[in-house]
Amino acid sequence: MIRIMGKISTGIRGLDEMLGGGLIPGRTYLVKGGPGAGKTTFAIQFLMEGVKKGENVLYVTLEEPLVTLVEDMRKLGFDLNHPKFNGIDATPVTEKTHLFAGAFYEEFGESFERLTTAIREKVEVEKYQRVAIDPLTMLKLTVKNELEYRKTFIGFLKALSKLGATVVITSDLRTSDIEEYLTSGVIELRTIEAGGKILRGIMVKKFRGSPFDEQIRPYRITDNGIEVYHTESLFVE
Amino acid sequence: MIRIMGKISTGIRGLDEMLGGGLIPGRTYLVKGGPGAGKTTFAIQFLMEGVKKGENVLYVTLEEPLVTLVEDMRKLGFDLNHPKFNGIDATPVTEKTHLFAGAFYEEFGESFERLTTAIREKVEVEKYQRVAIDPLTMLKLTVKNELEYRKTFIGFLKALSKLGATVVITSDLRTSDIEEYLTSGVIELRTIEAGGKILRGIMVKKFRGSPFDEQIRPYRITDNGIEVYHTESLFVE
Amino acid sequence: MIRIMGKISTGIRGLDEMLGGGLIPGRTYLVKGGPGAGKTTFAIQFLMEGVKKGENVLYVTLEEPLVTLVEDMRKLGFDLNHPKFNGIDATPVTEKTHLFAGAFYEEFGESFERLTTAIREKVEVEKYQRVAIDPLTMLKLTVKNELEYRKTFIGFLKALSKLGATVVITSDLRTSDIEEYLTSGVIELRTIEAGGKILRGIMVKKFRGSPFDEQIRPYRITDNGIEVYHTESLFVE
Amino acid sequence: MIRIMGKISTGIRGLDEMLGGGLIPGRTYLVKGGPGAGKTTFAIQFLMEGVKKGENVLYVTLEEPLVTLVEDMRKLGFDLNHPKFNGIDATPVTEKTHLFAGAFYEEFGESFERLTTAIREKVEVEKYQRVAIDPLTMLKLTVKNELEYRKTFIGFLKALSKLGATVVITSDLRTSDIEEYLTSGVIELRTIEAGGKILRGIMVKKFRGSPFDEQIRPYRITDNGIEVYHTESLFVE
Amino acid sequence: MIRIMGKISTGIRGLDEMLGGGLIPGRTYLVKGGPGAGKTTFAIQFLMEGVKKGENVLYVTLEEPLVTLVEDMRKLGFDLNHPKFNGIDATPVTEKTHLFAGAFYEEFGESFERLTTAIREKVEVEKYQRVAIDPLTMLKLTVKNELEYRKTFIGFLKALSKLGATVVITSDLRTSDIEEYLTSGVIELRTIEAGGKILRGIMVKKFRGSPFDEQIRPYRITDNGIEVYHTESLFVE
Amino acid sequence: MIRIMGKISTGIRGLDEMLGGGLIPGRTYLVKGGPGAGKTTFAIQFLMEGVKKGENVLYVTLEEPLVTLVEDMRKLGFDLNHPKFNGIDATPVTEKTHLFAGAFYEEFGESFERLTTAIREKVEVEKYQRVAIDPLTMLKLTVKNELEYRKTFIGFLKALSKLGATVVITSDLRTSDIEEYLTSGVIELRTIEAGGKILRGIMVKKFRGSPFDEQIRPYRITDNGIEVYHTESLFVE
Repeated sequence: MIRIMGKISTGIRGLDEMLGGGLIPGRTYLVKGGPGAGKTTFAIQFLMEGVKKGENVLYVTLEEPLVTLVEDMRKLGFDLNHPKFNGIDATPVTEKTHLFAGAFYEEFGESFERLTTAIREKVEVEKYQRVAIDPLTMLKLTVKNELEYRKTFIGFLKALSKLGATVVITSDLRTSDIEEYLTSGVIELRTIEAGGKILRGIMVKKFRGSPFDEQIRPYRITDNGIEVYHTESLFVE
Repeated sequence: MIRIMGKISTGIRGLDEMLGGGLIPGRTYLVKGGPGAGKTTFAIQFLMEGVKKGENVLYVTLEEPLVTLVEDMRKLGFDLNHPKFNGIDATPVTEKTHLFAGAFYEEFGESFERLTTAIREKVEVEKYQRVAIDPLTMLKLTVKNELEYRKTFIGFLKALSKLGATVVITSDLRTSDIEEYLTSGVIELRTIEAGGKILRGIMVKKFRGSPFDEQIRPYRITDNGIEVYHTESLFVE
Repeated sequence: MIRIMGKISTGIRGLDEMLGGGLIPGRTYLVKGGPGAGKTTFAIQFLMEGVKKGENVLYVTLEEPLVTLVEDMRKLGFDLNHPKFNGIDATPVTEKTHLFAGAFYEEFGESFERLTTAIREKVEVEKYQRVAIDPLTMLKLTVKNELEYRKTFIGFLKALSKLGATVVITSDLRTSDIEEYLTSGVIELRTIEAGGKILRGIMVKKFRGSPFDEQIRPYRITDNGIEVYHTESLFVE
Repeated sequence: MIRIMGKISTGIRGLDEMLGGGLIPGRTYLVKGGPGAGKTTFAIQFLMEGVKKGENVLYVTLEEPLVTLVEDMRKLGFDLNHPKFNGIDATPVTEKTHLFAGAFYEEFGESFERLTTAIREKVEVEKYQRVAIDPLTMLKLTVKNELEYRKTFIGFLKALSKLGATVVITSDLRTSDIEEYLTSGVIELRTIEAGGKILRGIMVKKFRGSPFDEQIRPYRITDNGIEVYHTESLFVE
Repeated sequence: MIRIMGKISTGIRGLDEMLGGGLIPGRTYLVKGGPGAGKTTFAIQFLMEGVKKGENVLYVTLEEPLVTLVEDMRKLGFDLNHPKFNGIDATPVTEKTHLFAGAFYEEFGESFERLTTAIREKVEVEKYQRVAIDPLTMLKLTVKNELEYRKTFIGFLKALSKLGATVVITSDLRTSDIEEYLTSGVIELRTIEAGGKILRGIMVKKFRGSPFDEQIRPYRITDNGIEVYHTESLFVE
Repeated sequence: MIRIMGKISTGIRGLDEMLGGGLIPGRTYLVKGGPGAGKTTFAIQFLMEGVKKGENVLYVTLEEPLVTLVEDMRKLGFDLNHPKFNGIDATPVTEKTHLFAGAFYEEFGESFERLTTAIREKVEVEKYQRVAIDPLTMLKLTVKNELEYRKTFIGFLKALSKLGATVVITSDLRTSDIEEYLTSGVIELRTIEAGGKILRGIMVKKFRGSPFDEQIRPYRITDNGIEVYHTESLFVE
């Protein structure tokens, strides 16, 4: 496959090859997967790859508390306490001491717009090369009206598009709506049960502006994060 | 298969053969496919085929910003900065500087009628031989009422039918409603997963006024756009 | 199979044999099939068979504009510009110059009753041996209330039943409601995908007052219209 | 299988054997089947068996007009113009000249209760050994409220239960509700598609107060009505 | 399997072995099965086993009239006219001459609470060792509000729990809600169609406080009631 | 697999190995399974493991009355009458004499918030190392509004997160919502029917902060509680 120049690495071994070199900078990508598929690890690897290159990165966590995440990622060799790594803890469960402290979580259900506004404000002040929002699912679960969600999401993407940052949004597998249409690419992390065995496969479903490997490839979550075996097939019959 | 005279080429190698020569001019066709199936590439190839023949063409983009599209299509060898190629950027995310600037996107959800009116006005002033609307899905996702959507869509088709242009509308696979009934033909781009491998197949589901190849044929998105292998079968068992 | 006397030909080679001679005159039949299955061709062949015998026939088109239909059917050797062939163009898209011109299409959504009334009035004045309504689907798609649809449809059938005409109503495959119960017979046109190949099969699901061939038989849309291979099986294993 | 004394014949060859002799008199049975499965033929055979034995029988038709039915059944050798055969034409489509003439059909949708009342009144005046209501489906399709339907149906069964007549109610396959619970037995007429071939099978799903053949048996609609092959299996592998 | 002491027999041969000796006294069990699966026979066998041992038992019938039931069960050798066998006829169809006569059935839909109150009152006055409610389905079908049903059902179970009786509640297979959670055990009667043959299998899905046979075992409804073949497998391949 | 230090044992043989040593203390885990899968046994084993080590534990029962549970667990060798074992009986059916006596169950449907508040109050006063809530399903079944449920559940988790206790929440298999996202791990107990045989398998779906065995492993409910065979495969082909 021809490697298109100007792409940036995902930080995930093997996946860059599937993408013909990496992601196109300045665009927004969707990473889909069920619970335990490795979405958070994906997001962190993507950001830490930027940190390694001296980029300023932003991580918005909506599911796992930032404190827990720092602890979990240390085991995979990722030190999130890096000056270039910026985190926003937008999880509903933990007690906030900074940005989202106070009244916010008493009205979590009505706060999608508020949250996206807060992120946009932060993003407009500082300059980031990479942004990850992990996962979008939580926001959707707390919004009553599908149409309202779409409108707010569109406004959110619009704000992100002005930043020039490459953005990775993670989401649950079941989400199959406006997110897939409005992002420049969709990567799926799948868990397949076959004969009592669990197989993990990664697949590029959509990648605007570039050819890509259309096959499902096996991947593993190792002690060094996600590894994609881009020259192998998922099933060997 | 007998080639019916007076048809026009789709610009897609192999597909014209499936259609017994091409599309019937002056009618509206539906191209269906999931994310990453190549709907946008299809629409662009269809329009650029007209440009090559000196036709005036119109592209209405609802998903991918026009700026990004111009950049992506250059890699496939299509130069959209051609005087005969006219684009309307109706994507919800990008900042507009021309036609749809201003209040519009603040009320995207209620704006289907407004958008269709705008397109009709543009189309009535200038004369186009080919029109592509890519994709219809975005409009549907932002409309609350199914019945209201149908009424507006009918009015939209009615306006298009007076133009004399050949129209290609792209849409998501899941759409299975009034669009399939009111268009003169339906072409499906499919992605089939078999044993961990991804196969791509194209199929003419409906083609009024002409016989057509009823089989599913393999296709690929190559460096020159979509290519259909109309003499091959999708499965070789 | 014993041929029951007094039946009339469908005009479709092979299908009459499946029906033990043809349709029972004066009754209403439902022809079901997806987009591209050949419902319109079926309806036209049924009517032109009557024209050949000197009968007065009526075609009500709800999907394809009458002008386009005349053009398309000429290629199959059917000349709709015959004095015995009467058409009502009730499509929502085309500009009407006669019967349904004017205010009607601005309120298409609420117009099922209005349309059926118009057809009934026409039918009560003139005398037809054969009537085709193609397809019913469009009417259903523009009606808000299922129950209201049923009531209007019942009133419509009631009016038709007084005419003495043999009526063919076409409909989408997904329709599985009051139409199947209140008509004297149901014929299905199916498209089956098997191993990347497309097979077309025709099946008589219900035929009151007569025995019939209960098997699915292959059919093709040829240059002379639909042909049914009533002595063959759909699958050869 | 032991034949329980005091049962009455269904009039259908082979089915009596499946039921260990026939139906238990004075109870209500449900016969389910899709369009074209033979529900009407079943109901008529059941009633004509009574007529042959000198019983007074009542047929309530809700789908096929009585006039058409008389004509259709003559071909199967059943003469419905017998003094012991009483019919109520409750079809929505035909013009009534007797019982249900007039205002009734203008309000068909709200008339379930009215219809059941009319049937009950007729039934209470005259004495019937066998009653068939064919099919219940039509009533359900015209009722807005599921709960209301259940209440009216319960009142209807209650009235029937006082008559001492054996009652057969036919219904669509999809009905899977209160009718199956409140009747003494359920017989299903099935159409199975296997490899492009159509197989017909009959099955006793429930038969209170008697053992029964639990297997699916093949049946055919012959020139003499339904015939059940109670010693054969549906599939021969 | 170790037999836990203090259990009571279900009265069904083979099932006691599956349950490691029988049911735990004083608890409530759910028996699920479709129409014709033998739920009523199960309930009666369970009660008559108590009668044989000199226990006072109560049967609440909601589907089959008590009169018919007495007649049907006599054929299986069960004499329900035993002084220890108490019945409440709560069927909606039959004319009541005792407990539930009068206004009740005119408002069947709103009467769940009324019925449960009546049963509770009866149960609180007299002392029963075994109680069967057959089937619960009827109650659910006549209740509008799922949440209201749950509340009333909880209150009902609460009253039953004070009695000290062992209770069997029968229910339709589709019921998969609060009943499965709040009862001490769930037994399923299944009908499996395989290759045109009908197989009957019984399965203990849940049995609190005891180990149990987790396999599906074949059963038959014989002239002596239900028999379970607890040492056999349902499928022999 | 590398054992991560500082984990705590689940008390279930074989499962600790699947989890690379056990659960991470101070986090909340979800155990999913259908009726009879062993969720309660899992919760009790988890708590009794703590009791063995001198920890203070809390069990909140929402389905099985505490009295019955004590009796059932004694048979598995677990003595719940231990001073370190604290129970809250929040079942809707039993008569309360302590905490939740009185008005509560008259309004069970509206009491999720009340219940969670009561648990939180208890938990805040006393100090527990392990908490089990068994099962969450009951709470969900009695809540009208999905969104309201999510908000209350988030508040509940937030309170639990401040305790420092390791929490196990059990839930029905069908639950596939916010619980899976907001907990640190998901363990599924599955019942698979294959050829009339029942197989039990356990699977770690998600386990934040640690690698884990991704395969489904067989388990059994023995006389000593749940046992996991972590070196075996569920299917042997």
